[in-house]
Amino acid sequence: MKNSTPGFSRRFSFARQRRHLTFTLALLASAPVAADEGMWTLDHFPSAQVGAEYGFVPDASWLDRIRASAVRLTSGCSASIVSKDGLVLTNHHCVADCAQALSTPKHNFVADGFAARSRREERLCPGMQAEVLGQISDVTDEVLGAIKAAGTQDVIKARDSAMVAIEDRGCRDGSQARCQVVSLYGGGQYKLYKYRKYADVRLVFAPEISIAFFGGDPDNFNFPRYCLDSAFVRLYDGGRPASTPAHLTWRKTAPAAGELVFVAGNPGSTSRLETIAQTQMDRDWTIPVRQLVRSELRGRLLDYADRGAEQKRTATFVLFAVENSFKAFYGIERALLDPDFFARKVREEQELRAKVSANAELASAVGDPWADISAAIERYQALFLSHDFLEVRAGSVSQLYGYARTLVRAAAERKKPSAERLPEYSDSKLELLEKELLDAQPVYPGIERIGLTMWLSKTREYLTVDNPLVTHLLGQQSPEALANQLVAGTRLADPKVRDALWRGGESAIEASSDPLIRFVRLTDADARALRLRYQQQIEGPITNAAERIARARFGIYGDSVYPDATFTLRLSYGRVDGWTYQGNTVAPFTDFGGLYARATAAEPFRLPKRWLDAKSRLDPAVALNVSTSNDIIGGNSGSPLIDAQGRVAGAIFDGNIHSLGGDYGYDPRLNRSIAVLTCAIGAALRHVYAVPALADELEADSN
Amino acid sequence: MKNSTPGFSRRFSFARQRRHLTFTLALLASAPVAADEGMWTLDHFPSAQVGAEYGFVPDASWLDRIRASAVRLTSGCSASIVSKDGLVLTNHHCVADCAQALSTPKHNFVADGFAARSRREERLCPGMQAEVLGQISDVTDEVLGAIKAAGTQDVIKARDSAMVAIEDRGCRDGSQARCQVVSLYGGGQYKLYKYRKYADVRLVFAPEISIAFFGGDPDNFNFPRYCLDSAFVRLYDGGRPASTPAHLTWRKTAPAAGELVFVAGNPGSTSRLETIAQTQMDRDWTIPVRQLVRSELRGRLLDYADRGAEQKRTATFVLFAVENSFKAFYGIERALLDPDFFARKVREEQELRAKVSANAELASAVGDPWADISAAIERYQALFLSHDFLEVRAGSVSQLYGYARTLVRAAAERKKPSAERLPEYSDSKLELLEKELLDAQPVYPGIERIGLTMWLSKTREYLTVDNPLVTHLLGQQSPEALANQLVAGTRLADPKVRDALWRGGESAIEASSDPLIRFVRLTDADARALRLRYQQQIEGPITNAAERIARARFGIYGDSVYPDATFTLRLSYGRVDGWTYQGNTVAPFTDFGGLYARATAAEPFRLPKRWLDAKSRLDPAVALNVSTSNDIIGGNSGSPLIDAQGRVAGAIFDGNIHSLGGDYGYDPRLNRSIAVLTCAIGAALRHVYAVPALADELEADSN
Repeated sequence: MKNSTPGFSRRFSFARQRRHLTFTLALLASAPVAADEGMWTLDHFPSAQVGAEYGFVPDASWLDRIRASAVRLTSGCSASIVSKDGLVLTNHHCVADCAQALSTPKHNFVADGFAARSRREERLCPGMQAEVLGQISDVTDEVLGAIKAAGTQDVIKARDSAMVAIEDRGCRDGSQARCQVVSLYGGGQYKLYKYRKYADVRLVFAPEISIAFFGGDPDNFNFPRYCLDSAFVRLYDGGRPASTPAHLTWRKTAPAAGELVFVAGNPGSTSRLETIAQTQMDRDWTIPVRQLVRSELRGRLLDYADRGAEQKRTATFVLFAVENSFKAFYGIERALLDPDFFARKVREEQELRAKVSANAELASAVGDPWADISAAIERYQALFLSHDFLEVRAGSVSQLYGYARTLVRAAAERKKPSAERLPEYSDSKLELLEKELLDAQPVYPGIERIGLTMWLSKTREYLTVDNPLVTHLLGQQSPEALANQLVAGTRLADPKVRDALWRGGESAIEASSDPLIRFVRLTDADARALRLRYQQQIEGPITNAAERIARARFGIYGDSVYPDATFTLRLSYGRVDGWTYQGNTVAPFTDFGGLYARATAAEPFRLPKRWLDAKSRLDPAVALNVSTSNDIIGGNSGSPLIDAQGRVAGAIFDGNIHSLGGDYGYDPRLNRSIAVLTCAIGAALRHVYAVPALADELEADSN
Repeated sequence: MKNSTPGFSRRFSFARQRRHLTFTLALLASAPVAADEGMWTLDHFPSAQVGAEYGFVPDASWLDRIRASAVRLTSGCSASIVSKDGLVLTNHHCVADCAQALSTPKHNFVADGFAARSRREERLCPGMQAEVLGQISDVTDEVLGAIKAAGTQDVIKARDSAMVAIEDRGCRDGSQARCQVVSLYGGGQYKLYKYRKYADVRLVFAPEISIAFFGGDPDNFNFPRYCLDSAFVRLYDGGRPASTPAHLTWRKTAPAAGELVFVAGNPGSTSRLETIAQTQMDRDWTIPVRQLVRSELRGRLLDYADRGAEQKRTATFVLFAVENSFKAFYGIERALLDPDFFARKVREEQELRAKVSANAELASAVGDPWADISAAIERYQALFLSHDFLEVRAGSVSQLYGYARTLVRAAAERKKPSAERLPEYSDSKLELLEKELLDAQPVYPGIERIGLTMWLSKTREYLTVDNPLVTHLLGQQSPEALANQLVAGTRLADPKVRDALWRGGESAIEASSDPLIRFVRLTDADARALRLRYQQQIEGPITNAAERIARARFGIYGDSVYPDATFTLRLSYGRVDGWTYQGNTVAPFTDFGGLYARATAAEPFRLPKRWLDAKSRLDPAVALNVSTSNDIIGGNSGSPLIDAQGRVAGAIFDGNIHSLGGDYGYDPRLNRSIAVLTCAIGAALRHVYAVPALADELEADSN
């Protein structure tokens, strides 16, 4: 999530470790995992623990059905299949970029909603791919063997090459399958995840943003909450709705308070197993600097949106994304600045280190990886600003810059053997990359100018004017003038132009007079050099040390720990529950009655006309949103809320404000996930939107 | 500066303390003050120490002349008298708001500069007052006596009333004099400062912002630097130029590297003597939250300025102010997040506490004030957001809101006896307040809308929607709609309307249908209640505890410590010097040659046409800016840089990036102040601006 420590691997054989563990189980301390805590992989789910706590033991076939119904959207969300014809439930905010892309000055599907009256009216979401996890296989030995064989300078390159080789080999036919090697426990395990992919995903239904995101940014991450943050897309296969016999059945009633519920989805990233030095880096550098930049970007976009209706329309989705990130990281930052929260993290690390010290064998095997990471973090502090501005966050929110970098880098990389490329350009990644690059998408010059100006001016500000990286980037120009010139001059908004450059490869790139292509060609060597330096001086040593910490943790706590989130399928369990904070108890349900009571004439509390008209047709007692104790994080958006019978009862769309610290730790008293309930969605489809066919399809096999 | 701990007083009699000290001097530890460190009051300047270090001992008459020539501008700057006819040198950025106020869509004095060709063309700076310090007298016993007589709940009220009574009594005729009681050492001493005031200050000369602020925000706080950040105003008395026989003579040459130099000015605020708990509050709450808000405001203003020429013109000064604060606090935040810097602060506190513990008498006298402050800070954390948004920073950058609050509060307060009012409305404050309120000033509706929208929306965001304070503020309206309505409806931009409400007092306010007046009347009780709660629960207990810490510090270190900055006259000493950081040595001088070499065709490195034309007439070797080791902080802007002969050699306009941590501590290796040299100013006046009369006046008695 914070990109400070992406994809670390560790020299650690889980298979070997497990053998070792069988001899030392008696010595294992119990893992520091709270009730309901954990984002568990499906091949290692603590069913017995759930059974002990809730009296229901998910068996293999139950878990299999969940796996086959859970969907990952490559845009960064989760979802679930809810009919035999490929219908998928997710959040509105997971398809808002699609609704925005399909909109024009005349048809604003974000503001007015979208409802296909027949399947013919369902419309392709550009750039969107859906993936359903099939097989999981262990490839730990192969990856760690390759890392071990490499020198210390080449840790990251060796790891990436090994992962790419496994992926390329695993899915030779990329038309229906996608293979991905996942690093778990920060590199303690490597697993090959094989997905059934759907590159043709079409928008079926999206409500108005004013009901989907009722309360807007002010209510975001707060509860009680009143949002219909739901939408439907459909998976297509060969131009026809996909056949999906494995799917979740639709629950028409709300779950009960205290009821056991599961969440299956793809939490994006957590940092719970990182060391204190890494967490401090996040707290003192990564998060605050990025928040300051994000806050200025937000201000620019807000004023821009205030210029007129068309500016408001084109800024809507990017503004949502920026504000959502801003608020999420504000919550994370506040958690990390909370002395008690941070002290608990310090205590956990101290306990682990004390236990390692007390175990002579383990201590001598792992050494002092914490000190090694601290040293790497100190080096990172010196590199952070340039690496972050020129490599990690280059281009800010400019879509055109993203196209240009992809084209320039792909042209250079594709000449090499797959395993020697930057890993995002390896063979198994190219199909999705090509789709994201070439699908037609609207480009908004006003937003592009803001994105590029922000990036160039903040790079100059944080790196300072006389930094050679900055003079190389700007020459004698101002950020504003350069951004204007690049946006006005480039033709990359045209998918045909991108297509020609993509197919033309390096010679086309070299011959291109497109100013944005030329700009990226001129400046990309700096960014690549920073990336290499980061890998060699920081990521590599941390990877090495983190593997030893993973070994230590397994040695002490066995396999009762779950891995940090990696935007891969996880299952969490919990109960429908509110919480009590500073003496105030928050109930777990809201209902339609509360929604109408909260509505005013002013955005973001203004209801769409349809909803005002439908008031008498809706039962005010129908539950709308719910809070549960499931352990989730960003990326879980759209995840099905599942009952013990395997029915979908809602879609997760948020966490409460306390859950934001969940990036670094889960507090069972306070962390809550927030879902929109299927009972409310169904009622809205029938009584507000009058789309009975869709409601019927959902309820076809509901029981 | 951070307003987290404004104006603490302490139950501590300095007079008594000094008597006590004479008996214990032998036991005193040496104060932790570095070479060149210190913002010393003029009645307690360490002349002997300067003599020992530099071989020059400033005597009483030397100090007296400095005092009589040093000027405080109520707008928050410093300056110096540089001719017998009331001519005053300060920074361009200290008069930029005046140049902006005098501008119109047709005449932009900020962009194009301003030069009065004769005294008749000199123009009144609205709201600006200049003050020259006369007498200083000790009133510690009276203030502390009053505090002691009050109960613990009333510490702040008792202190404020006593200070007001002394001020009102001290300057019964406010037409030429201003009296101000200053709390030093956080309340260890109270002194009555009596000023000669000049309410009629006129703009004489201001260069173009593009040369005054050459390099703009990117170069701000950086060095080498190339700015002509200087301007001249003139003090008027009875409609005629003031007669100022006491003034600094003009030095026509640059000082030498290593030369002893003094800075006389009004550093605004430092927090060096605060406890670690207070510094942590600044680091973890006050600074980061305000920076995030400031960053969004900056973004809104930047986009607004990009809408067109008139938007750019009207946003210029407020944008400068916001960006300048943003960068200053970024530097402060980075210093506080530097582990070494913070560890040094912790060590200093631990040393003081250990020394107190080792002194049984002192320890029993002071108790554990550090724990008391920690407890108060914990309460402050719960109150911070509401107190900050509704009281301290209410209205954001809206000038109209400021007028409305002043009018509403003044009407209520002026009915009471002076000593029982909110202290900013006491009798001795009213003249300046009235001038600031009633002087004609342009009001820009676009900026007003941004300011009010920002304030209302951020208040809602940080306090959350359902907070009763927020619902009281907004009712059922959106921040944007309410802001638009208030700005469109109010007539407070008209000075005559303000004048009528000011003179009409409470009945006029109550009868007013002005929407902004009504809005403030509706919401001000909440703000006042928060202020009272802050005083009683936080400021009062901290004041009590801080007095005991001051007593402890004097007991251990004697009077070899200087007080934190309070925007009152201080003198610092140091030398012309560069610095070395991470192996790079920065030389102390820049020159005209460097300026031309740095210029490009793009803002903010684009030179005004006059400067391009004048290139051949300027000697490239003339020194332009200089860095010195003087200990300064915001508020020192415009301070004269003075040589041992008492000549003005420059005007301080900035500090280097390392100096920003100076809010919390001075590092003699790195902290540097930056000045524009008189030799460069003189050359520019003659060869660029062709204003020989002004240059002649400056050089009339130079030697």
